[in-house]
Amino acid sequence: MFTLHKTDSSTKARLGTLKTDHGEIPTPIFMPVGTVGSVKAVNQTDLTEKVNAKIILGNTYHLYLRPGNPIIKEAGGLHKFMSWNGPILTDSGGYQIFSLSEMRDLNENGAVFKSHLDGSEHLFTPENVVETQRILGSDIMMILDECPPYPAEYDYVKNSMELTHRWAKRGREAFLNTKPLYGHSQMQFGIVQGGTYEDLRIASSEFMSSLDFEGLAIGGLSVGEPSDLMYEVTDYNTDHLPAEKPRYLMGVGTPSNLLNCIALGVDMFDCVMPTRNARNGMIFTRHGKINLRNAKWKNHHQPFDEDFPSELCTQYSMSYMHHLFKSNEILGLELASKHNLTFYLWLMEQAREKIKNDEFNDWYKEMADQTDQKI
Amino acid sequence: MFTLHKTDSSTKARLGTLKTDHGEIPTPIFMPVGTVGSVKAVNQTDLTEKVNAKIILGNTYHLYLRPGNPIIKEAGGLHKFMSWNGPILTDSGGYQIFSLSEMRDLNENGAVFKSHLDGSEHLFTPENVVETQRILGSDIMMILDECPPYPAEYDYVKNSMELTHRWAKRGREAFLNTKPLYGHSQMQFGIVQGGTYEDLRIASSEFMSSLDFEGLAIGGLSVGEPSDLMYEVTDYNTDHLPAEKPRYLMGVGTPSNLLNCIALGVDMFDCVMPTRNARNGMIFTRHGKINLRNAKWKNHHQPFDEDFPSELCTQYSMSYMHHLFKSNEILGLELASKHNLTFYLWLMEQAREKIKNDEFNDWYKEMADQTDQKI
Repeated sequence: MFTLHKTDSSTKARLGTLKTDHGEIPTPIFMPVGTVGSVKAVNQTDLTEKVNAKIILGNTYHLYLRPGNPIIKEAGGLHKFMSWNGPILTDSGGYQIFSLSEMRDLNENGAVFKSHLDGSEHLFTPENVVETQRILGSDIMMILDECPPYPAEYDYVKNSMELTHRWAKRGREAFLNTKPLYGHSQMQFGIVQGGTYEDLRIASSEFMSSLDFEGLAIGGLSVGEPSDLMYEVTDYNTDHLPAEKPRYLMGVGTPSNLLNCIALGVDMFDCVMPTRNARNGMIFTRHGKINLRNAKWKNHHQPFDEDFPSELCTQYSMSYMHHLFKSNEILGLELASKHNLTFYLWLMEQAREKIKNDEFNDWYKEMADQTDQKI
Repeated sequence: MFTLHKTDSSTKARLGTLKTDHGEIPTPIFMPVGTVGSVKAVNQTDLTEKVNAKIILGNTYHLYLRPGNPIIKEAGGLHKFMSWNGPILTDSGGYQIFSLSEMRDLNENGAVFKSHLDGSEHLFTPENVVETQRILGSDIMMILDECPPYPAEYDYVKNSMELTHRWAKRGREAFLNTKPLYGHSQMQFGIVQGGTYEDLRIASSEFMSSLDFEGLAIGGLSVGEPSDLMYEVTDYNTDHLPAEKPRYLMGVGTPSNLLNCIALGVDMFDCVMPTRNARNGMIFTRHGKINLRNAKWKNHHQPFDEDFPSELCTQYSMSYMHHLFKSNEILGLELASKHNLTFYLWLMEQAREKIKNDEFNDWYKEMADQTDQKI
């Protein structure tokens, strides 16, 4: 259940609330990615208390392969399995089938793929990914889609989009004909495809809107195209989405990407970047990006930004952080991961506040440029 | 400053308090090992709030090589560098020189060794390890000793012990002739050697006691000898140590080892086992040892021991813990490490309570046997 509170007067930025049975999600929001049922290097208590996460993401492909549906079902769903009582969104596994699994046979029925873990063969269909996500019990489930690479020819993208549309119809029917398993309700989001072709994006937006999903995602972006092109596509894409449904831009992105896409009318984001980069010693701050492995931090005996509310910023010196990464200490991964997620969630909170106070347009470009700097 | 409150009537177990400028340490106590300035996979806040650590250990050899004395000195000592405001004990680096570094030349003056990091050559002497530990600012520093392997011939152990004695005298003088750098006081502990030879252990105990260190360590055990022999040596060793000084058994051990050695009059312990085993998926519980990777936990959808006050035990199911280790998730390392340390600290708290209430002798053998079981 989505409530749109306000649309910004100078940009297309929106302020909203998405209600789930596991809690309310203020939008715009960023969703930390918990691939196999754990947001990497962050425990569930800290996710709530330190990172301030309002919803996290689980990957259907990974969880289906391990621990597998029977274990998740026995546990009573993903929330109970991983001991996370907040909202969860699960993807359909489509993206991972095409990017991670070893082989595939894509046909009208679905996609046959080999597990990257043990080579075993599996079939995902529009119907059985709904079933798997019923078992996961996610608050928001995604339809099965095909995500074409970038660049791709018009005809390829068009055919792929049409397959995604036929799958979307079957997926929506499967959703409407089944019920949640654990007493809490579930939503289903459609996924707009169409690559970087405006007419296809418009057609796909209109088709997906017609199926009355609880929300709509913009898929197939952040797959290698330049940022400006991503913004261009997002811009015309959101123009063709219904105002009353939440909009989720999948797999995006840098802090700057998020701010620019909020201005283009996006409500929800997910990306592995904050946690993956953290594990490589890269942290995002409101003053720019920092490589903790850089020798310049060796003698910096203060925290980087004591006014910023992350453990890393308030409690540990940059010299110590540098030392942890040079020494390959696990604590470095934890502190940097929590910091980056705290920063992403803080940025979303700031954005909501600025939209509320009609200050978004003055604020976001400068902040976006600042966060892109290298320190 | 050590205060002995009580000695058990049936065993040699002791109840005491060791005061440092960073806080009081109730004994018997276990000290988590923070090798390079981080207790592996545990953040400093959780060390205090969840693990209940009262004192941690830092390794002089590792910290001297990286980040190095100049960085630690600039930071204002190890407490400030790593943002840990509780007591710290640092070893002298002796053990690591002999076990980790690539080459060595051991002579009367000290030990020449090559760094395991970059092959650079360094010299540790009884005097300069005091200087390094002044820079570290540890609440308790250790003297430089030579730690012979097990088994070793009598003559080798005797000569090695005599060298350690001459080094101890020089180290104590260096300590008494220098001052702390950061406004808090430091203590120095001597280290008894003598291998598994009773006459040497007695001679070494008497010699070390004569130098009036603030505490005395039993070194050279837990180097491969059987547990029963370790207990035998510890037993006659503590008989020759002054009652009014704290006794620290270095590098020991399993929960069962700790309980048995408390009964033999030991006050302080350190060991990498709880954290190292945790990273391999092995957890210690009051009911025995558990391998989280074992398939038997796959379908165990409850926490293992909900009455035990660790995050792992109260918040996460065994099925989820199994999944985290099978999936090589960092969260598994964190939760298991915190659990094992919480267990070790809980065991010490129980031991203190039992000594206080004259229940130690009835309790410790059964608990020791229980913790040795494989579940």
